[in-house]
Amino acid sequence: MSKNSSSLMGGRPTRDDVASRARVSGTTVSRVLGGKPDESVSPAVRARVLEAARELGYVPNSAAQALRRGRTGLIGLWMCLGYSRYRAEVLDRMRRISAETDHALAVLDVDEEYAWHRSFDRALRVPVDGVIAFDASTAGEVFAREGQSIAPNLPFVSMGAYWSEAKSYVGVDLKAGAEMAVDHLLATGRRRIAYLTPQDSNATIEAGRLEGYEERMVASGLEPRTFRVSYSAADRVASIVEILADCRRRGWIPDALLCMFDDIAIDAVPALIRSGLRPGVDVAIVGINGSEGTERGECPITIVRQPIEIMCATALAYLEAQIDAPSSPFQQIILKPELIVRASSRRD
Amino acid sequence: MSKNSSSLMGGRPTRDDVASRARVSGTTVSRVLGGKPDESVSPAVRARVLEAARELGYVPNSAAQALRRGRTGLIGLWMCLGYSRYRAEVLDRMRRISAETDHALAVLDVDEEYAWHRSFDRALRVPVDGVIAFDASTAGEVFAREGQSIAPNLPFVSMGAYWSEAKSYVGVDLKAGAEMAVDHLLATGRRRIAYLTPQDSNATIEAGRLEGYEERMVASGLEPRTFRVSYSAADRVASIVEILADCRRRGWIPDALLCMFDDIAIDAVPALIRSGLRPGVDVAIVGINGSEGTERGECPITIVRQPIEIMCATALAYLEAQIDAPSSPFQQIILKPELIVRASSRRD
Repeated sequence: MSKNSSSLMGGRPTRDDVASRARVSGTTVSRVLGGKPDESVSPAVRARVLEAARELGYVPNSAAQALRRGRTGLIGLWMCLGYSRYRAEVLDRMRRISAETDHALAVLDVDEEYAWHRSFDRALRVPVDGVIAFDASTAGEVFAREGQSIAPNLPFVSMGAYWSEAKSYVGVDLKAGAEMAVDHLLATGRRRIAYLTPQDSNATIEAGRLEGYEERMVASGLEPRTFRVSYSAADRVASIVEILADCRRRGWIPDALLCMFDDIAIDAVPALIRSGLRPGVDVAIVGINGSEGTERGECPITIVRQPIEIMCATALAYLEAQIDAPSSPFQQIILKPELIVRASSRRD
Repeated sequence: MSKNSSSLMGGRPTRDDVASRARVSGTTVSRVLGGKPDESVSPAVRARVLEAARELGYVPNSAAQALRRGRTGLIGLWMCLGYSRYRAEVLDRMRRISAETDHALAVLDVDEEYAWHRSFDRALRVPVDGVIAFDASTAGEVFAREGQSIAPNLPFVSMGAYWSEAKSYVGVDLKAGAEMAVDHLLATGRRRIAYLTPQDSNATIEAGRLEGYEERMVASGLEPRTFRVSYSAADRVASIVEILADCRRRGWIPDALLCMFDDIAIDAVPALIRSGLRPGVDVAIVGINGSEGTERGECPITIVRQPIEIMCATALAYLEAQIDAPSSPFQQIILKPELIVRASSRRD
């Protein structure tokens, strides 16, 4: 074994070389260099092993180790790394929750626009014990269905607004979230509820939000009206101001704005003020996703909050169950978001 | 070679098995499954290879591939994944810039609080061609100095507010940034310039900011006054309100707030309003880092902007140079941030 890996690694020193130099067993070398603090190794022995490894220039080659152990201690988190407050918060939470487990995160950008075989190849270069695909609509679905031939038995959980029923998943029902928001606005007397969504939105990106809004409006005998705002943060306030000016010209001023994600809701506050409308008084605002920024500012914003904490913890638990027992049945759950009412939509 | 890897991988089909079934060379199999679109392979041959790979259940094992090819096409981005707007923007930019190269990012959380050998072990499980350590103060320094024994010749660039002079780096001089901010505030007539920093800040976290502020104030015959605000976003506005109330009781109301990072500056706006002070009129605000959120809102905020784009592009260029020619000399640069004056500190 050590000969094989030694030759593959081009004659580099092996674990056994370190063991013999440090006068300890190979197992002890693994304990010291294996990445987890191990109380059973004394500080003196630990120092000797580290010293021997340094002297020999020994590298515990992660690729070779992965092949030997069959486990890498890494979980692949596949997601888009494009900027969004919500994504940054999910990363933060995944980091905190995984820190309590034996697994570390390796975050890979799985770009939906790549051909699937390219995406997975890049992502699969990282030797992981399992994968969580977060808000990866196409990639998640394709991998869940085709994964058996691409990476047999790789434990896989899809998580977020998109999930694949072919494997384990932790879904979040954003259609139900949009419905909650409309119901709340109707209950507080709003009737002219507009829906703000980015220019480049489509059915996949909406993940049920637009559908939930439209169905609820129609069911209440009201006309759904969707407006497209700039996706770019720099132009967004201006684009909402323009939409409001246009509404005014047409004699239809909304009394509520339901925003597809909460950065739009945050930008709606200054846009309303610049348009001479009082946020939360003349026009209610509700944002979907529910990031930290919404409760700050002079007009705290009502949100449909994604259950980030429970979503991340559940997905990680499902994945670890699959890693521990690869043949165990898939676990599947759909979570509902939560409506948090703040000043932007409250009627006093 | 193929026997070795076949036995290491537990008898799984090899690249040669796929090649013989698809009646193509092993090189062609690698081209098709190698992760990069290759125009030299015809669509028909590509389909045959994909089909053969699927039928055999062939997995291009990334670990084995890494050992064979010596390259993985991955760049390790070591950073803290804890939430910050600035970090999320750096991730976004690194993603966009690396998409134009042959490299994909594997983002690893390098927690400063771990013992260094644990951090690196986890990060080094991912087979990368090189590493960019972003704002990783201790880890970056230790790895740059000790890396030769941990992972010999692994190309390494430190980037951001902390850099190690032992290897290539792209530093950002935040001390100069704080000095620029104080000079600007002095030039616009402010004298009672307070510095707001998080409770848990220290010399490492400040990375020269506090020092730059204090030196400039003292040099101008003014007294530096530092106030500690809540690190938690939820309590930050309230904590700034409290600081301002305390200042008022002591009869010293600041006429400018220099904020250690820009989320503090963003929260200073509602805090000033709640304290009966007009942001930008009674009290100027300047934030350091310069994220997107600062130009929005009713009081666009003056910032000392980190040169995110050029920092990321330069670090990636330095790293690729090291990957292409491992023995080429280190490249080192220190960038200065840029002062962007907005309504929060302008004197009309």
